Amino acid sequence: MSFETTRLAELADHDAFIKRHNGPSSDDMARMLDVLDTPSIEALIDKTVPSDIRLGRELDLDAPRSEAEALEYLGHLARQNRVAKSYIGQGYYANHMPAVIQRNVLENPGWYTAYTPYQPEISQGRLEGLLNFQQMVMDLTGMELANASLLDEATAAAEAMALCQRSNKKRKSKTFFVADDVFPQTLDVVKTRAEFFGFELIVAPAATLAEHDVFGALIQYPSASGELHDLKHLITQAAERDIMTCVATDLLSLVLLKEPGAFGADIVVGNSQRFGVPMGFGGPHAAFFATADKLKRSMPGRIIGVSKDSRGNTALRMAMQTREQHIRREKATSNICTAQALLANIAGFYATYHGAEGLRKIAHRVHRLTTLLATGLKQAGVALAHDSWFDTLRLTGVDAGKIHGRAMTHDINLHYFADGDVGLSLDETTTAADVATLFDVLLGSEHGLAVGVLDEEVIEKKLTGIPAELTRESDFLTHPTFNRYRSETEMLRYLKRLENKDLSLAHAMIPLGSCTMKLNATSEMIPISWPAFAHLHPFAPRDQVAGYQQMIDELAAFLVEVTGYDHISMQPNSGAQGEYAGLLAIRRYQAAQGEAHRNVCLIPSSAHGTNPATAAMLGMQVVVVECDARGNVDVDDLSAKAAKHSDALSAIMITYPSTHGVFEARVREVCEIVHRHGGQVYVDGANMNAQVGLTRPGDFGGDVSHLNLHKTFCIPHGGGGPGMGPIGVKAHLAPFVPNHSVTPIAGVDAASGAVAAAAFGSASILPISWAYIKMMGARGLREATQLAILNANYIAKRLEDAYPILYRGENGTVAHECIIDVRPLKAESGISEEDIAKRLMDYGFHAPTMSFPVPGTLMIEPTESESRYEIDRFCDAMLAIRKEIDSVTAGEWPADNNPLVNAPHTQADLADDNWERPYSREVGAFPSDAVKAAKYWPAANRVDNVFGDRQLVCSCPSIDAYRS
Amino acid sequence: MSFETTRLAELADHDAFIKRHNGPSSDDMARMLDVLDTPSIEALIDKTVPSDIRLGRELDLDAPRSEAEALEYLGHLARQNRVAKSYIGQGYYANHMPAVIQRNVLENPGWYTAYTPYQPEISQGRLEGLLNFQQMVMDLTGMELANASLLDEATAAAEAMALCQRSNKKRKSKTFFVADDVFPQTLDVVKTRAEFFGFELIVAPAATLAEHDVFGALIQYPSASGELHDLKHLITQAAERDIMTCVATDLLSLVLLKEPGAFGADIVVGNSQRFGVPMGFGGPHAAFFATADKLKRSMPGRIIGVSKDSRGNTALRMAMQTREQHIRREKATSNICTAQALLANIAGFYATYHGAEGLRKIAHRVHRLTTLLATGLKQAGVALAHDSWFDTLRLTGVDAGKIHGRAMTHDINLHYFADGDVGLSLDETTTAADVATLFDVLLGSEHGLAVGVLDEEVIEKKLTGIPAELTRESDFLTHPTFNRYRSETEMLRYLKRLENKDLSLAHAMIPLGSCTMKLNATSEMIPISWPAFAHLHPFAPRDQVAGYQQMIDELAAFLVEVTGYDHISMQPNSGAQGEYAGLLAIRRYQAAQGEAHRNVCLIPSSAHGTNPATAAMLGMQVVVVECDARGNVDVDDLSAKAAKHSDALSAIMITYPSTHGVFEARVREVCEIVHRHGGQVYVDGANMNAQVGLTRPGDFGGDVSHLNLHKTFCIPHGGGGPGMGPIGVKAHLAPFVPNHSVTPIAGVDAASGAVAAAAFGSASILPISWAYIKMMGARGLREATQLAILNANYIAKRLEDAYPILYRGENGTVAHECIIDVRPLKAESGISEEDIAKRLMDYGFHAPTMSFPVPGTLMIEPTESESRYEIDRFCDAMLAIRKEIDSVTAGEWPADNNPLVNAPHTQADLADDNWERPYSREVGAFPSDAVKAAKYWPAANRVDNVFGDRQLVCSCPSIDAYRS
Repeated sequence: MSFETTRLAELADHDAFIKRHNGPSSDDMARMLDVLDTPSIEALIDKTVPSDIRLGRELDLDAPRSEAEALEYLGHLARQNRVAKSYIGQGYYANHMPAVIQRNVLENPGWYTAYTPYQPEISQGRLEGLLNFQQMVMDLTGMELANASLLDEATAAAEAMALCQRSNKKRKSKTFFVADDVFPQTLDVVKTRAEFFGFELIVAPAATLAEHDVFGALIQYPSASGELHDLKHLITQAAERDIMTCVATDLLSLVLLKEPGAFGADIVVGNSQRFGVPMGFGGPHAAFFATADKLKRSMPGRIIGVSKDSRGNTALRMAMQTREQHIRREKATSNICTAQALLANIAGFYATYHGAEGLRKIAHRVHRLTTLLATGLKQAGVALAHDSWFDTLRLTGVDAGKIHGRAMTHDINLHYFADGDVGLSLDETTTAADVATLFDVLLGSEHGLAVGVLDEEVIEKKLTGIPAELTRESDFLTHPTFNRYRSETEMLRYLKRLENKDLSLAHAMIPLGSCTMKLNATSEMIPISWPAFAHLHPFAPRDQVAGYQQMIDELAAFLVEVTGYDHISMQPNSGAQGEYAGLLAIRRYQAAQGEAHRNVCLIPSSAHGTNPATAAMLGMQVVVVECDARGNVDVDDLSAKAAKHSDALSAIMITYPSTHGVFEARVREVCEIVHRHGGQVYVDGANMNAQVGLTRPGDFGGDVSHLNLHKTFCIPHGGGGPGMGPIGVKAHLAPFVPNHSVTPIAGVDAASGAVAAAAFGSASILPISWAYIKMMGARGLREATQLAILNANYIAKRLEDAYPILYRGENGTVAHECIIDVRPLKAESGISEEDIAKRLMDYGFHAPTMSFPVPGTLMIEPTESESRYEIDRFCDAMLAIRKEIDSVTAGEWPADNNPLVNAPHTQADLADDNWERPYSREVGAFPSDAVKAAKYWPAANRVDNVFGDRQLVCSCPSIDAYRS
Repeated sequence: MSFETTRLAELADHDAFIKRHNGPSSDDMARMLDVLDTPSIEALIDKTVPSDIRLGRELDLDAPRSEAEALEYLGHLARQNRVAKSYIGQGYYANHMPAVIQRNVLENPGWYTAYTPYQPEISQGRLEGLLNFQQMVMDLTGMELANASLLDEATAAAEAMALCQRSNKKRKSKTFFVADDVFPQTLDVVKTRAEFFGFELIVAPAATLAEHDVFGALIQYPSASGELHDLKHLITQAAERDIMTCVATDLLSLVLLKEPGAFGADIVVGNSQRFGVPMGFGGPHAAFFATADKLKRSMPGRIIGVSKDSRGNTALRMAMQTREQHIRREKATSNICTAQALLANIAGFYATYHGAEGLRKIAHRVHRLTTLLATGLKQAGVALAHDSWFDTLRLTGVDAGKIHGRAMTHDINLHYFADGDVGLSLDETTTAADVATLFDVLLGSEHGLAVGVLDEEVIEKKLTGIPAELTRESDFLTHPTFNRYRSETEMLRYLKRLENKDLSLAHAMIPLGSCTMKLNATSEMIPISWPAFAHLHPFAPRDQVAGYQQMIDELAAFLVEVTGYDHISMQPNSGAQGEYAGLLAIRRYQAAQGEAHRNVCLIPSSAHGTNPATAAMLGMQVVVVECDARGNVDVDDLSAKAAKHSDALSAIMITYPSTHGVFEARVREVCEIVHRHGGQVYVDGANMNAQVGLTRPGDFGGDVSHLNLHKTFCIPHGGGGPGMGPIGVKAHLAPFVPNHSVTPIAGVDAASGAVAAAAFGSASILPISWAYIKMMGARGLREATQLAILNANYIAKRLEDAYPILYRGENGTVAHECIIDVRPLKAESGISEEDIAKRLMDYGFHAPTMSFPVPGTLMIEPTESESRYEIDRFCDAMLAIRKEIDSVTAGEWPADNNPLVNAPHTQADLADDNWERPYSREVGAFPSDAVKAAKYWPAANRVDNVFGDRQLVCSCPSIDAYRS
């Protein structure tokens, strides 16, 4: 830099973040282009992205801001939020996240940048955390089985409804019962789901359950207004009539309440949020889903199981992956991919740290304070709607207006029922002083009540809101894990031990095709810990969340510009939920046009497995469109099928660039064909990272797309969630995106039901994507896309002599990922793509995506964040592995005893003096200089998985399952 | 817990933190007491702590508060601070700590809980970080050697003065020259130090340097008022007259300024704070100290050096530990122990992340903005005091009052000189908009200047504040380390790789005697990242720092109650600096009493090595008092020596309980003897952790103590600093504690010079100790002490059959630590205390303190934070090691080839197929089930250290060096 001539504007370095996010330096870029024999990055892009869909201009976004500037502005937005004391409840509660967990899990890239634990050998840490979560849920609910989390309580309830319907062999009704005092957001989502499953809903008082001819029933315990229904009576009655029961419940209440499992509930769902996870204006939180053992084969979501590795040591893995999506084909009733691993881990650790003793203290305190409040209110003549309570009271016959006025002066939010009743829920953070304030708010200041006096009275008279028959008697959290880590020192070491078992982006590239494991920058993560984002209730009054609203509106505007759509819905909590919301909008739109009969969904064979599952959930008929030898949609086949189904054509779902890693040249034509036959175009946003700044789905024909903010827009994968899957839609679909019954969304049809519990999904992680876009600006985003494509082509070039590249575009380039074909090698050597994947662990890498979209292949996506150094390290490893395979082929190593089939190598292998292998320990565990300098050790030897696991991709089923 | 009878007050759980901090549960405690055959913890304490010094009541502190409550209250205090924009400069500058460094170093227990890297095999990560720091300092200063940081710039300057005096063989003057435009706080500390060294100071304009008969000179470059002295001229002149030159400088300015080394400076010092470390109201920051090669044997502080391990691999270590403290006996001129490792690492990583290119951009921007400002001011007719500048301007002939008024309306702090001049320093955070605002503030709003126009003019006319002859020409940061980690992903992985090389409290107990490696709780650490604590300038107006002041006052009040003293001085930045301040107060007090001649300091042979060094620095004569066979002060010897030196007796320095790990029964008598002979009693606070809540030094005879807040009061060791060493004094000494020339301290004699650069030392880490005391309360603190004593006695009991316990109290107990004697074992087996220390690494532990205070021993201090589980794990390891030693003694393993002498075992050992050892790999590297479950790997084999290193303790010299 020449000091004399550089202008201040450049010295100001507002765009400094671009170089922090993008891995290759300009030097690196030049060298990589040399290898590709391509004169410039623009030339590479011109060869790769079809000219007829090129954007042809820079995106119209604000100029990039530095990290400090972006954080300053976000801080300004945060200050527009007001953190009032929340007694709203309704499934969201203030709590204290233990600081040791906040800093060492939530704020630790070792935890938040990890991928979903498909590779168990390098995921034992978070698998153990998730197993803790499952055990905690099982213990507290009294159920035999629990999964490793679902997106939110409302989604879990909808899944429960579907599970009841398909599992209830005795009662073939199409009607589902929902108690009228479940949380309103739960009812909202269940309604949406039921409509397209073709279920009727009966919403009525819980006590009337047995009067109806239904296949299942959903009851809230404690109810939304705080009542403790007599579960014993309800479940017994239901069981006698072969009605399956699902209980939506609250984990903290179950510390004191008899567990639903003890009454014979079939399914128990709920939100684990209050176990240490901030309310976050709605999410992300980990919902739980627990069942009786008999339902284990139908459980939605992921389950962690205990297994063995090849040395016979205990090893954890995701179990039961042969789930209903795989076997029910187009009758799928669930498209669940993402879990809430990071939040489930936090909730599990919260229970681990507190143990039963600590949870009892918290639950007793919450209940005691509620009882004091109830006792005082009754003494003051206030009528309570119910005689029972855990933490929630509903006051009837009160002057809600006056109470509201007083509450506002104390910065207190209460729950105001439509009928004028006032509700409130206490929580872990509530103190005796808070209860005194609540008396002031609810009664006015002249009440004369004293908390201390009431406490004496409660103890003396043994007052409680929990009827004897609903009082918990059984133990819970008796496993040693929940009884060892009581001091912060022990907890810290436990968390660090688990962290160090797992490979994350803090160690190495995670080159997963279609998963876009890019940098999750610290500056993007910092704001989510800020109280002004973390501690807002999703149902807080709108004037308290102005900062959130502005941030969301700004992010939506960014995404509108990036995608070319007209409107963004932030509600979906995952890509799959986004797909559901997108197809839902199409179906609703078509219904509004009088074309509700359109129900055929065309899906290319290269599509993500969620696509057909989602279509099936919306009652659509999936028709698979073939691909040609290049991996492109077979346009002739498409034309034929579109024509054949023209009257019934609802939509096509395509991924762009395709999951084959190619920018299909005829995508415009594909869209036009579908439009011509009256269909809508759903562009799956999984590969959006190859489009940003170069092309826009809204321009080349898309009507709707979901955006995986956890792929393209930097929300970390969290070791298997959270995700965010907002959808972009063209204007005609905008009224039909999800609305919300509690907090209606402007511009959306009032009749448009929700798909998630909170209006803006997992709002608290949206600052991550906001900051990313703000700090990159148009140029940075475009360069990121260009570099993602450059990196992938560089890898393809470096590997092409060793491994055939399966698909390329018309000019011989790949998009942002490439598929290498292992089948020929396997045929001659016996070495499989799985062996290569496991062997990469010895070289310190996470495996690429295995056998998706084509069995016997590996799909590699480097992203723009990886430096040339790291990409070369990866290519060197792949080339060294190829030489190892050659040694097997040449007979130098036996087919059943070589570094590939024995991979990964562990410390246990090396420590074993009985080393009966035809290669050295060094070759086994330290095959490169890089690992000699810094070794990451897989915590388990190869885990014995069934074949079905091997072909899993993002937990979603293969498209082949849908081919009829 | 019975729900019916537990009162709300208990359910509220305000004291929940006590169980998080203290490791053993009540069950554990009961079992440990059983092993000790002691009925209760009180009985154990009664046996251990002499009854005549027992406090006999609970400390009078606030009731304990929960973590959330303490943080809420601290947040309230933080909001009493006001973060104005600071242009004060004077050695403290706003900057942007890169987020990836903030979160993954400063806020990561893997970095901040590590100990000083005395054991290089398990410290390679931070040793590399510190080596980077040294290289960065050498490159920027142009010097041949740099140390791994000192406490602050003022201390570094004082050390430089001492180094000049003892190194200057040609000019035996006793006078030192200080330019009159050095930072005032530097002059303040240099004055204090000079007085007791017996040096004269000449403070005069830099240009007059050569006129004086001095042994050395200190020049600030750029000066405190921004001027760039012509170093070439000054240093050449000085060298011609054999005057050694020390240049105090600023690293960022050296990016553009010719480096002092190029002019022939002998010593270069400064503060690295602006390289990513918050101002923190004064600290902690890492000062640097660089010298010409010829001075390397006299360098104060720690130096990291490159060495080899036993496999011949490169390994880093602390080098040159045979420093002047060791060889100059009572003529020691430095007592430096603590460095600022964590902050030096941060500054080094800042340079690593930015590289030369990034630093140039920042430095050019700062200088450009300063030049714009200077140009505009001159155009507006304002006179500048100097024609040269880097980032600092001094305006003369201005109306400071008006400027101050306008500055306040903009929340801007400037530097107001006593003569009415106004100064200001720009920094990394300054923007063009800020400069526009500065024009408004300095000129009033009608100035008509436009930054953009000025920028054009500056470029066109090539305006600069840096004279051609002072323009840097040489390269810097050319080493690959400073050129590889430009993307956040690469930087994150680099930081994680280094972190994972080091053993910290996040892995295991660090049972270092006298170092008190207790929990550094997350909730204690969180506030130091808050902007309202982090971003205050130490010289900010007092009305902006009310929250700090209150926090400091509250902490002082806590410590007064804990110690029994009357007043606390928060200034000293380390224990050694505390000792210096304490003895200084004694000497000043005695001088004020007309007893300046009292200069004998009695020091028991068991004392920390810093004690005599400190006494020597204050011109005192050290007289060693012997200890008896139990390790107690020999009271007869003391009486005799006190009597012999009665007229000249100044003080005694004792440690209590003694460094032998014993509560000496006659400590009251010891104090009385000294008082009787007119001496003062200095109680070294290193072992305060055994006293808190049980006894108080101020009660049993102490006049002054320093408190290692980084030992007893939870400030983390940071991998070798920061520390904090405030002193408690009796009322008669209170006027004589350090004052501060820029920000005077109430109640302290105006003539009492400073010992550190900032009035309250490292103020920004004081919230850690505040929170600890607040969350523990009196009961928690007492229980912590009791448990520390219980844990030590439990260890002594479990180990006593395997290793003799060297010292015990009268009733057979030890205090909070115990010394095991390895000499008999060594005699029969050849296995040394070092072999045991290194072997413990294989078991996953940090070694105890080696050969202090007695050669051939290990001193073990578990602290209260370690659980019984961890302590048993440690004892099991020690007992297993004893069995291994027996195998050597029995001849089962050769003396020169066994798991002990080969320890630690590394991955390289295990991977080596050529395993020529008489034990298995598993015995070598996985000797216990615990390490099989979770292995921490030493990153290097045994590093080849000289004998001198082995006996080092806390970097301080052995007392034997002072025995005449």
